Amino acid sequence: MTERNSTAAYGVLKTRFKRLAALQGAQAVLHWDRATMMPEGGARARAEQQATLSLIAHETLTAPEVSDLLASADETVAALGEWDRANLSEMRRVHAHATATPADLVTRLSHQKSETEMIWRRARAANDYASLAPALDRLVGLVREQAGAKADAFGLDPYDALLDGYDPGRRAAEIDRLFAELEVSLPALLQAIMEKQAAAPKPHALSGPFPIAVQEKLGREIMGVLGFDFAHGRLDVSHHPFTGGVPDDSRITTRYDEADFTESLMAVIHETGHSLYERGLPDEWRMQPVGRSRGMTIHESQSLLFEMQAGRSASFISFLAPRLKQAFGSDGAAWSPENLLRHYRKVGPSFIRVQADEVTYPLHVILRYRLERAMIAGELRVADLPAAWNEGMKNLLGITPPDDASGCMQDIHWPSGSFGYFPTYTLGALAAAQLFAAAKAARPGLEEALGRGDFSPLIQWVGEKVHGQGSRLTPDEILTSATASPLGTGAFLRHIEGRYLHSQA
Amino acid sequence: MTERNSTAAYGVLKTRFKRLAALQGAQAVLHWDRATMMPEGGARARAEQQATLSLIAHETLTAPEVSDLLASADETVAALGEWDRANLSEMRRVHAHATATPADLVTRLSHQKSETEMIWRRARAANDYASLAPALDRLVGLVREQAGAKADAFGLDPYDALLDGYDPGRRAAEIDRLFAELEVSLPALLQAIMEKQAAAPKPHALSGPFPIAVQEKLGREIMGVLGFDFAHGRLDVSHHPFTGGVPDDSRITTRYDEADFTESLMAVIHETGHSLYERGLPDEWRMQPVGRSRGMTIHESQSLLFEMQAGRSASFISFLAPRLKQAFGSDGAAWSPENLLRHYRKVGPSFIRVQADEVTYPLHVILRYRLERAMIAGELRVADLPAAWNEGMKNLLGITPPDDASGCMQDIHWPSGSFGYFPTYTLGALAAAQLFAAAKAARPGLEEALGRGDFSPLIQWVGEKVHGQGSRLTPDEILTSATASPLGTGAFLRHIEGRYLHSQA
Repeated sequence: MTERNSTAAYGVLKTRFKRLAALQGAQAVLHWDRATMMPEGGARARAEQQATLSLIAHETLTAPEVSDLLASADETVAALGEWDRANLSEMRRVHAHATATPADLVTRLSHQKSETEMIWRRARAANDYASLAPALDRLVGLVREQAGAKADAFGLDPYDALLDGYDPGRRAAEIDRLFAELEVSLPALLQAIMEKQAAAPKPHALSGPFPIAVQEKLGREIMGVLGFDFAHGRLDVSHHPFTGGVPDDSRITTRYDEADFTESLMAVIHETGHSLYERGLPDEWRMQPVGRSRGMTIHESQSLLFEMQAGRSASFISFLAPRLKQAFGSDGAAWSPENLLRHYRKVGPSFIRVQADEVTYPLHVILRYRLERAMIAGELRVADLPAAWNEGMKNLLGITPPDDASGCMQDIHWPSGSFGYFPTYTLGALAAAQLFAAAKAARPGLEEALGRGDFSPLIQWVGEKVHGQGSRLTPDEILTSATASPLGTGAFLRHIEGRYLHSQA
Repeated sequence: MTERNSTAAYGVLKTRFKRLAALQGAQAVLHWDRATMMPEGGARARAEQQATLSLIAHETLTAPEVSDLLASADETVAALGEWDRANLSEMRRVHAHATATPADLVTRLSHQKSETEMIWRRARAANDYASLAPALDRLVGLVREQAGAKADAFGLDPYDALLDGYDPGRRAAEIDRLFAELEVSLPALLQAIMEKQAAAPKPHALSGPFPIAVQEKLGREIMGVLGFDFAHGRLDVSHHPFTGGVPDDSRITTRYDEADFTESLMAVIHETGHSLYERGLPDEWRMQPVGRSRGMTIHESQSLLFEMQAGRSASFISFLAPRLKQAFGSDGAAWSPENLLRHYRKVGPSFIRVQADEVTYPLHVILRYRLERAMIAGELRVADLPAAWNEGMKNLLGITPPDDASGCMQDIHWPSGSFGYFPTYTLGALAAAQLFAAAKAARPGLEEALGRGDFSPLIQWVGEKVHGQGSRLTPDEILTSATASPLGTGAFLRHIEGRYLHSQA
């Protein structure tokens, strides 16, 4: 093969991956619409559409000529620039994941995910695990089939093979080590924090109702403060907040509770963090693999950077407090920054992961990580999940859920076929703490700026160090280049100690 | 080829056309979202998604094996049941249209449609035809290229070849004849109606404002009366009302004017007519060509059956009047059925097609039909369109638009590449009159039922005669079987005379 043919091969690959990106963009619209707009009666047709696009995307990636093109392109990789080399390497990674899963399994998985997710919506509402179990069992069977196929192809443990799809290069052995460090430190910290909070004066109640229209208006205002561009995105409502769409059309969702605005507003800030990452990906690589976000750990680090690190900082809460007071037409001691901080930093065991504080959150994730590893290993049957869940909650958090709706049915992940995803929430929290510490060190006025509602120093720093990097580097390379350390628990534990025991920002 | 292989070939074709239907369903969601939800900054990414799905649908249809499969399946067509035979025949028709257009032209058309439509939105708002003309000119060039390719493939005139894509089997020669009959009769009828209306007492004004939230609530209520199932559909807002989605997830849109509720409500009734047709298509053929609606003339006959025939009948208006009065909290003579009828039946020349009464509407369509035929024939340049438009309006309706926004830029059709579509609006009006007359004859209590808000006799009749037929018959076969006549102007002209000159229902 001449050099010219080899360069041509890479060009053909770019055209094919551009088509793949367009297909994935279309899938993102279908997914967003299903969660926000679609009437229930549209489920059968939508499942067919989603399965078809999944299959076509899979065929686009796994056509026999792609292997040949990748081999040809490899021959002159040295002639490519740095970004193109990284792009070719990402093409190989994506191709390897796709070819490891047979086409008929892709279709069966897509249908089973759609079916299980729709059943889960009803089963969770009715607190009826028995009605979910058969479909979930079929889905776990298919996911295990996929994990086995990928494990064979990559020479990895099946769970590692799934994990690699969410957080490239991450292995369970490393997670075991990081989570063990958390499990050693967190219970004592939690105990100390709870004692300190119990000894402090009780926070003044934030009394509602908080009308949804006002919450929505406030959410949009704060999105604007954070730099969200409504010409390139939307805010809507879904059962479970998420960020969907594509970088130039970023769709975030939240949910509202008239009795409590705090969760919805922080969900908006969280999803805006995800969205800013997508929007900040390198524009010239929009439709290529190297232009995509670098896995779910880095993604979650961006949402938590905004929600937990900056969003709950004393500086930002001092900016937020008068705006909340104005929006909800109240006054008095309840709306002081100090009182709001007490609400936004209240720590204690609870049943629902998405409502958990940042100290107990990792324990929720450790539970899910262990249970899903056991399910993928065939060591835990779907029928036995509720009992294992409740036992794990008791051991890790000391509480037992009153029912499965507040227990093992609370999350959409497993019913939608996502196994290997949960650990990235806590890995993302570790990364967020590391990134925020580095950002503050690099930009000395950063925290004061947050107090003025000015996120630009943070966004510029993280835009350069993370967003603009796309998938050029591995997750750990991004962290090391931004913070001078690979992923660890140090910054996170220092953050928890500082914020909750020494009342630092 | 053995009979067994031939039957197998048809099965393979069904699988392929099912994939095509799923792709088209996905395209429908992307299209709906673009018109209702998408922020402007998402246009570039969406254009890429839509072009990619168009190209993949085209490849799915035009792959070389499809011709072979169609040839094999043909050999044992006699062994198939009636619906399967009709399905195979529709597969051939759809395949012929697709193979007539080269793949690269499909992509160029898709991109040019997206670009032109987005430019049109701004150009129309700014009344700036000059900014639209270059993109529209490029689009007309591509549509002419497509028309030429189809003309060669089918042995048809280029305009007929486009027309056949919207109304299977329809030819311009027949339209010329029908439109000539209308042009002979309508001006005198219009004159007589306007004189009669001028001599009658002026209607009492319906004074607003009519809050959008109340209009929306009323629209949903009336949709329910008409049989719309919100578990299988939605009502939203777009610049131009339309019906999108798929049969089991039917998305209709309207637009609101706080100063005038009448247009929005009738748009809702119109689109509900389209939607009921889609929902009523034969369920067992959902994902096959024979299960689709039978072209745009029949489709428009269904919307106009509800909007113009039933919706403006004296019976239904007598049902509607007290509900309007209640919704808008008013009383007095303005809300009597008689006064509402005067508003809903006011006739006279106007600039905007979608706001035109049913007497002048055909003249709007005749203008567009002539102009688009001339553009496709290369006899009218895009640059000369505004002048030709204004001259045509003067000749046909006796009025000259004040600007291009109320003139040749008012409709989305040409900027979105739809040439050959406009005549189906008036052909649909002719068909609607024919169908309503036949329905009333077949179901004697039908009109009285409308007075009680009971659409079931109409829906049952039209469901059996039209909706449930899918694409089993040609448009004229559907009409002949339902009304004992092919498409003509008689029923329509009798309807106009009866309603407006003899004050019948």
